[in-house]
Amino acid sequence: MLAAALCAVVGIAVAYPRGQGDPLPAWNDGAAKRAIVEFVRVTTDKANSRFVPPEMRIATFDQDGTLWVEHPMYTQVIYALDRVPVVVKAKPELATVEPFKTVLSGNRDAIAKLSMSDLEKILAATLTGMSVEEFNTEVKRWLATARDTHFRQPYTALAYQPMVEVMRFLRANGYKTYIVTGGGQDFVRAYAEQVYGVPPEQVVGSAGETKFAYDASGRPTLIKEPKLLLNDDKTGKPEGIHLMIGRRPSAAFGNSGGDRQMLEYTDAGDGARLMMLVLHDDAAREYTYGPAAGLPDAKVGTFPQSLFDEAKAKGWTVISMKKDWRRMFAFEKEAAGVIAR
Amino acid sequence: MLAAALCAVVGIAVAYPRGQGDPLPAWNDGAAKRAIVEFVRVTTDKANSRFVPPEMRIATFDQDGTLWVEHPMYTQVIYALDRVPVVVKAKPELATVEPFKTVLSGNRDAIAKLSMSDLEKILAATLTGMSVEEFNTEVKRWLATARDTHFRQPYTALAYQPMVEVMRFLRANGYKTYIVTGGGQDFVRAYAEQVYGVPPEQVVGSAGETKFAYDASGRPTLIKEPKLLLNDDKTGKPEGIHLMIGRRPSAAFGNSGGDRQMLEYTDAGDGARLMMLVLHDDAAREYTYGPAAGLPDAKVGTFPQSLFDEAKAKGWTVISMKKDWRRMFAFEKEAAGVIAR
Repeated sequence: MLAAALCAVVGIAVAYPRGQGDPLPAWNDGAAKRAIVEFVRVTTDKANSRFVPPEMRIATFDQDGTLWVEHPMYTQVIYALDRVPVVVKAKPELATVEPFKTVLSGNRDAIAKLSMSDLEKILAATLTGMSVEEFNTEVKRWLATARDTHFRQPYTALAYQPMVEVMRFLRANGYKTYIVTGGGQDFVRAYAEQVYGVPPEQVVGSAGETKFAYDASGRPTLIKEPKLLLNDDKTGKPEGIHLMIGRRPSAAFGNSGGDRQMLEYTDAGDGARLMMLVLHDDAAREYTYGPAAGLPDAKVGTFPQSLFDEAKAKGWTVISMKKDWRRMFAFEKEAAGVIAR
Repeated sequence: MLAAALCAVVGIAVAYPRGQGDPLPAWNDGAAKRAIVEFVRVTTDKANSRFVPPEMRIATFDQDGTLWVEHPMYTQVIYALDRVPVVVKAKPELATVEPFKTVLSGNRDAIAKLSMSDLEKILAATLTGMSVEEFNTEVKRWLATARDTHFRQPYTALAYQPMVEVMRFLRANGYKTYIVTGGGQDFVRAYAEQVYGVPPEQVVGSAGETKFAYDASGRPTLIKEPKLLLNDDKTGKPEGIHLMIGRRPSAAFGNSGGDRQMLEYTDAGDGARLMMLVLHDDAAREYTYGPAAGLPDAKVGTFPQSLFDEAKAKGWTVISMKKDWRRMFAFEKEAAGVIAR
């Protein structure tokens, strides 16, 4: 025990480029943690051949399933469903029209069976038609009171503590951390600064058009339109990265087939690279799905076996939530060195 | 003279929030310079009611005609015309096809008469079809040798020194400086860091789609497509600002009707605001056009009289290049306190 503790202390002193002590306390020692620390060490050491100049230090993170919980539904979809009564109050004629009628019924089974086309109608009705400022205010108000039914926590508490630490560690070493999400850019921007320390200008996401307009008082504003401009998923991720950042990242983190091209694009750059995939294999603390569940395709956050195989073949790091993460959420209590919920 | 010098020194000590000495030496004393210094003073003073928190400090700058020379043609158009022989070498069949035939003829009058549709064909042929990295390399190579025929200088030397100083001054006081250009985002990104100290991720511009693809060696890359995604002009400027930045700027700088909505959008925000328009009224050192020339619409960089009137009515600052700028370009020689070229 003493020897192990000593090794850990020595390891810390040698391995961590900046700051004092372990920058990743929510991580267990293992290949994943070592890959992160080693990447930061070599890319910030001027004497190292794989040194990356500060202005080139870009790290991109998928959000749903990589930075926070995506089960049983994307938080944005839960928000949209919750907004339906408000929208119907303003437009009572929708109450008897599908899919709004089903949502208002509260019948969970029926809601779960809504088609993608139904969902698009709900998203358009609830996420567009207002100014960007009104939307931001509404999302913030909802997040302040809404609770996840499984964890009984605010959605903003469902960020993975180990990933929050990685972002902080990278930023402390000169990296700009970007969220690159298939989810709505404006939705994620409403909380990314508070939850992850990521400002709005570092959130790349799916985005609808906005329309410049003068409001009733003649004040120029931007109205959210029901027309998709960027679909930030799959090939849309590297395309969105180029549009919004203009540099190839050095590090990329994902958890699904939607992140494959972002990781491939990152991997193909010159110099030191870090590609990581979060594997949902911890049914006790979160959920098990994807290859960890022996399922070729999970319903949410599709992580196909082929991606798992590609990661192994290319030397990308697969993070086991069960083995690599000592502490999953900040709300877990720590008692006598043991993490418990 | 002594009294004036003394006042200037005292003024500097009181007025400049950070750094030592005059942060804007290329500016003459006057309303424009004072507006900039005063804006920075109040927005960075925590005790001031108009203090702006650091994360909210966003300043946006139009490029052509605001940050550098746009006459007699946008630099990007000159680049596209210069690229035509290279494109024709790769595709000889274009040599006999218009508008390429006219461009190859070198007949300046005929080239000047090309239509907008001709120009679009030239832009599509010269600015798309290659990877984003190849494009970046080509633009940099061209800029290293090409010369403006009027000033006999590299295009990158045609940045206005007073504006470079304003950007630097704002950044030294916690502002993020963005270029918001109707020009091509990727074109501007190729030199913005070197010329203005603005990194690629802070360049918002007109952008074509890119397409994720694997090159001949299987390496993932992005190919520039001849399909417009963002037209970053007029209403497209505030829309582009929301898409790429997600915050309403506190300060905005422009010089044409294409910047009107960006300035209105900035003006409509809460707290301290700074809206400035560059007026091209210095035929001796640069060009005279727009309201300064008594022309309702200039051919390039349209600055309509109505914008001039709106600026006056709303208290935006019009910068007279002739009166407000002591030194216009960094390449001008300074001798015995007098600027000469």
